[in-house]
Amino acid sequence: MRILGIRDIAVPMGAPMRNAVIDFSKMTVSAVAVITDVVRGGEPVVGFGFNANGRYAQSAVIRERLAPRVLEAPESHASADGTTLDPRAIRRLMMRNEKPGGHGERAVAVAALDIAVWDAAAKLRDMPLWALIAEDAGNGAPERGIPVYAAGGYYDPDKGADGLVAEMQRYLDEGYTQVKMKIGGATLDEDLARIEAVLTLLGGDGSRLAVDANGRFDEEAALRYGEAMSAYGLAWYEEPGDPLDFSLNAQVAAAYPGAIATGENLLSLQDARNLLRFGGMRPGLDFVQFDPALAYGVGETVDIVAMMAAEGWSARRFLPHGGNLLALAAAGGLSLGGCESYPGVFQPFGGFADDTPVEDGRVRLGDAPGAGFERKAALRDLLRTLL
Amino acid sequence: MRILGIRDIAVPMGAPMRNAVIDFSKMTVSAVAVITDVVRGGEPVVGFGFNANGRYAQSAVIRERLAPRVLEAPESHASADGTTLDPRAIRRLMMRNEKPGGHGERAVAVAALDIAVWDAAAKLRDMPLWALIAEDAGNGAPERGIPVYAAGGYYDPDKGADGLVAEMQRYLDEGYTQVKMKIGGATLDEDLARIEAVLTLLGGDGSRLAVDANGRFDEEAALRYGEAMSAYGLAWYEEPGDPLDFSLNAQVAAAYPGAIATGENLLSLQDARNLLRFGGMRPGLDFVQFDPALAYGVGETVDIVAMMAAEGWSARRFLPHGGNLLALAAAGGLSLGGCESYPGVFQPFGGFADDTPVEDGRVRLGDAPGAGFERKAALRDLLRTLL
Repeated sequence: MRILGIRDIAVPMGAPMRNAVIDFSKMTVSAVAVITDVVRGGEPVVGFGFNANGRYAQSAVIRERLAPRVLEAPESHASADGTTLDPRAIRRLMMRNEKPGGHGERAVAVAALDIAVWDAAAKLRDMPLWALIAEDAGNGAPERGIPVYAAGGYYDPDKGADGLVAEMQRYLDEGYTQVKMKIGGATLDEDLARIEAVLTLLGGDGSRLAVDANGRFDEEAALRYGEAMSAYGLAWYEEPGDPLDFSLNAQVAAAYPGAIATGENLLSLQDARNLLRFGGMRPGLDFVQFDPALAYGVGETVDIVAMMAAEGWSARRFLPHGGNLLALAAAGGLSLGGCESYPGVFQPFGGFADDTPVEDGRVRLGDAPGAGFERKAALRDLLRTLL
Repeated sequence: MRILGIRDIAVPMGAPMRNAVIDFSKMTVSAVAVITDVVRGGEPVVGFGFNANGRYAQSAVIRERLAPRVLEAPESHASADGTTLDPRAIRRLMMRNEKPGGHGERAVAVAALDIAVWDAAAKLRDMPLWALIAEDAGNGAPERGIPVYAAGGYYDPDKGADGLVAEMQRYLDEGYTQVKMKIGGATLDEDLARIEAVLTLLGGDGSRLAVDANGRFDEEAALRYGEAMSAYGLAWYEEPGDPLDFSLNAQVAAAYPGAIATGENLLSLQDARNLLRFGGMRPGLDFVQFDPALAYGVGETVDIVAMMAAEGWSARRFLPHGGNLLALAAAGGLSLGGCESYPGVFQPFGGFADDTPVEDGRVRLGDAPGAGFERKAALRDLLRTLL
């Protein structure tokens, strides 16, 4: 039982949106295939992985550092009983000769490759990845219906408030019950008008709407927006300031009465732990949004949930960033509070299986072996180009 | 006034040592040239840069993300008076469409390119880089003799305590007065014997010896080593634990009576600030070691020193990691407490100008325009291969 080959491609996201900080038109993603020496039905068992949007493809780190270290140590690939791959052992190989700290592109590259290894490991066990993750984490009773929310509301010069409301209406029509929109890319007054237009669509129920500043605000603006939005009763106020400015975050948490949410740009267990220790986050109110497909992959995410428990946090406060089948599998296997979704964008990586539509704000975990990437036809077709 | 081209190469370090965490035999570094449209003496004015050791070459980030963004906006390259480049404006171009947080390989790639831009900007002003940095930071009175210490004492199966003492003796013979050695790659008893052997060479003066654990220890080991070493009166105890485990760091600081030092693996202003805010660091006793050639370059380092002042820290407590001419220029221009040196290793990037030897533990800032890389023949020869 070993990995015979590791392949990757860099794929343009083709996503013409912008948030308050970046535009996505030049964004790329790494797709990875891990080819095992196990043949079933005349085909090798292959695991697939990719990183989430926002941090660019990582071919160089994968090809120059991670893949050679894995392939030169085939004796460390198999699980103790020889029936599958050992993803944690393979992750240790990837990190040989890597210094601690500095969790950036490396975390993204490891995530893409690690996900492919876990996908292969689940397929070799002939079980869904969510079930393998649950087993790994000792989570005996995962639920099958995972809450998802529709993240959109990007800025677009041609869209206007009418276009924003029409976009949100489409999400509701597709089965979502909770939506998220961007703020911070316009003036406060313009943003408040955008928020109120969407709230009108939602019958005034703020708990069905989250807003996302993408880390743009300084302390003064973060507090000013928080004060202006406090009466709306929003689901959460996301990334008010720089994701590593824990003091700013703590000040917003002390002043804003509703939930805040952050963490998608903290790419390691160590950074995640620092947020909980120093960011003023309130365990019974706020949300964390670490992204398994940016932050070292599946094993790190299992460890993050264990760290959260040690810091007094329920896994239900964890709503992973990413909006893809891997985040869904993690949310299922670890009984997180739900996961993000980007309806129609970041394709073909974004979204879930073709046969599990959103119904009443939830997506059902599938039964396919592995992460289920093959159950999304456009994604399957892209991943097959790696073979 | 604009940048016409950006070139880079990945160079093997050829450094056969190991510390407690990694070995350096496969380490690479990016060397970068920034070619301006200004011609002097028949040659274009060119700036050079490179990243420090420990984080690998970053060709992909430079070529795919940073360089295209810089080269597509030539109207933003020049300073307001048109006499030189504007490194801060060029840095903003590099960071277009980059998300906040996740400071890893990107910080290293930006550093290499940013250093080349600052080197060119200083050459265009016909002034040494240390003087340009001093001007940028409003530091009116830089001293010319910079304290340096010899960092070595790596683990080597063939070396033994005798070899370690002989190595340290060579550093003293070369003009160093303070040395640093690795710990954490052997048992505590073995490491204490190694430390005591070097202390004997130094006449028992612990203030001339620092020890470096490279972030290897968990809390228990970090405290155990600290207790065992506390009577030696060492110059400092470096990176006891994971560089982002601020709670561990604070516990060591609370228990260990001497100075601790850390920061080389914190690759941004935000991470550096978190260390000072949450790491239990003692402003009058401990040292920080952020590396300008890993952490976004020169402008970020100027900003880090300003942040330190705002947090109540003297720049004298900052001893940059890296051991090269760029770190020396930063130490000079910002009146830091000194800088690291790796005698004979990490060549040709490590070390200082051929005509400024270490004398009585100090290296003199040179008068050559720019960072002075051309005054180190082996480095000059390598950098010229970029042209």
